[in-house]
Amino acid sequence: MRLRHKPWASEELERHPEIVIPAPAEAKGNWKDIFGNVHPIHVEVGTGKGKFVTGMGGLHPDVNYIGIEKYDSVIITALERVKEAGRENVKLLKQDVSDLLDFFAEGEIDRIYINFTDPWPKKKHAKRRLTHEGFLQMYQKVLKPEGEIHFKTDNQKLFEFSLESFANYGMKLQQVSLDLHASNFEGNVMTEYEQKFSEKGMRIYRCEAKYRS
Amino acid sequence: MRLRHKPWASEELERHPEIVIPAPAEAKGNWKDIFGNVHPIHVEVGTGKGKFVTGMGGLHPDVNYIGIEKYDSVIITALERVKEAGRENVKLLKQDVSDLLDFFAEGEIDRIYINFTDPWPKKKHAKRRLTHEGFLQMYQKVLKPEGEIHFKTDNQKLFEFSLESFANYGMKLQQVSLDLHASNFEGNVMTEYEQKFSEKGMRIYRCEAKYRS
Ligand SMILES: C[S@@+](CC[C@H](N)C(=O)[O-])C[C@H]1O[C@@H](n2cnc3c(N)ncnc32)[C@H](O)[C@@H]1O
Ligand SMILES: C[S@@+](CC[C@H](N)C(=O)[O-])C[C@H]1O[C@@H](n2cnc3c(N)ncnc32)[C@H](O)[C@@H]1O
Repeated sequence: MRLRHKPWASEELERHPEIVIPAPAEAKGNWKDIFGNVHPIHVEVGTGKGKFVTGMGGLHPDVNYIGIEKYDSVIITALERVKEAGRENVKLLKQDVSDLLDFFAEGEIDRIYINFTDPWPKKKHAKRRLTHEGFLQMYQKVLKPEGEIHFKTDNQKLFEFSLESFANYGMKLQQVSLDLHASNFEGNVMTEYEQKFSEKGMRIYRCEAKYRS
Repeated sequence: MRLRHKPWASEELERHPEIVIPAPAEAKGNWKDIFGNVHPIHVEVGTGKGKFVTGMGGLHPDVNYIGIEKYDSVIITALERVKEAGRENVKLLKQDVSDLLDFFAEGEIDRIYINFTDPWPKKKHAKRRLTHEGFLQMYQKVLKPEGEIHFKTDNQKLFEFSLESFANYGMKLQQVSLDLHASNFEGNVMTEYEQKFSEKGMRIYRCEAKYRS
């Protein structure tokens, strides 16, 4: 994600506390109140510019979406998208995914999406990959039993690593696709990166990993 | 595998009981005696014309290989290969893999290879795929605890199915490769099908699945 300095961004984010939740630690355990309903909650980690959560929010009005993105200069575009689309079932957190346990109570989330996350190709950085065992442990704490992770990437090595990581953590795998756009998978919502890479003719990989209860 | 009628094949197979073990049920529990050593035993199911077991036998003289293939007209070529190469650590069974429990005692095998097995693309035939749960249960009975399955295929759908099957059976995954010939995997021995498909420019998929003890 290329970062442009946008000094006005942080002010604009603060102007929309109804979308970019300002103190998510206070929301912990209370997300039902924030959304005003008991619909399932799906969290996207590393949301980027918000194309996915905005699209999903429109397709699935009975699901609540929360996108987490750490950079002002990136999440600002997600804010614009959510605002323009008038999506009341989509919220954003300008936060680091590593702090996830501060934002959600045990079992408060139904599903986690990980889309085109940074591959961290060097072995010494493997722990930073959002599909590393350390993150899988963390996700499990905030997910319901048998909660699911839905994962997409263009990065072959990251997909290989992630399949191993999911299976070795004892998770089930379903809907594995080694060429998503050539498959008969229905209801796919493209992310920014997905659009860019698939236009270049690259394969998109996808799978769903499910925790055992 | 194209089948040509070879009436002389069955006689030729019978002429080599030192390679094509004639009554494998009698060998059950006694494979050490047949090989005359206590080296680990690796079994390839659906061996075809034997290029893989013959090659592996040469590369790994301290491992014993057993190739299982059900058709006379196919295994006859494997017999010629093993004979010509003078591989004493490679044996063949002209048998159906479904009868595996008749041939091996509990824990008698160290590893199973499944290479380019028939994909059985129709859902109603899924049980015939050699990576189906039913076969995984069977393999586990004859494998040592934490035994491994090493799997290669050119067939994308079969690979997707098999990853799910391994993980859902609770196995670990290692060395997942979504493009074996472009990877830095060392010591690969090509099978007949592998050579044919990779010459056509098709990707080869590979993974290792490991039982939990
Ligand atoms: C490669 S981009 C992909 C964006 C989007 N998911 C897509 O598919 O188009 C990864 C994004 O994840 C964000 N990110 C990476 N690690 C993060 C973390 N630990 N916490 C929050 N955001 C993170 C980055 O800032 C970046 O915007
Ligand atoms: C597609 S060929 C691949 C042969 C070889 N492994 C290769 O990679 O070149 C599959 C082979 O498995 C054999 N086969 C399939 N099902 C079998 C079974 N249940 N028992 C024994 N052999 C089987 C077939 O006869 C065929 O020769």
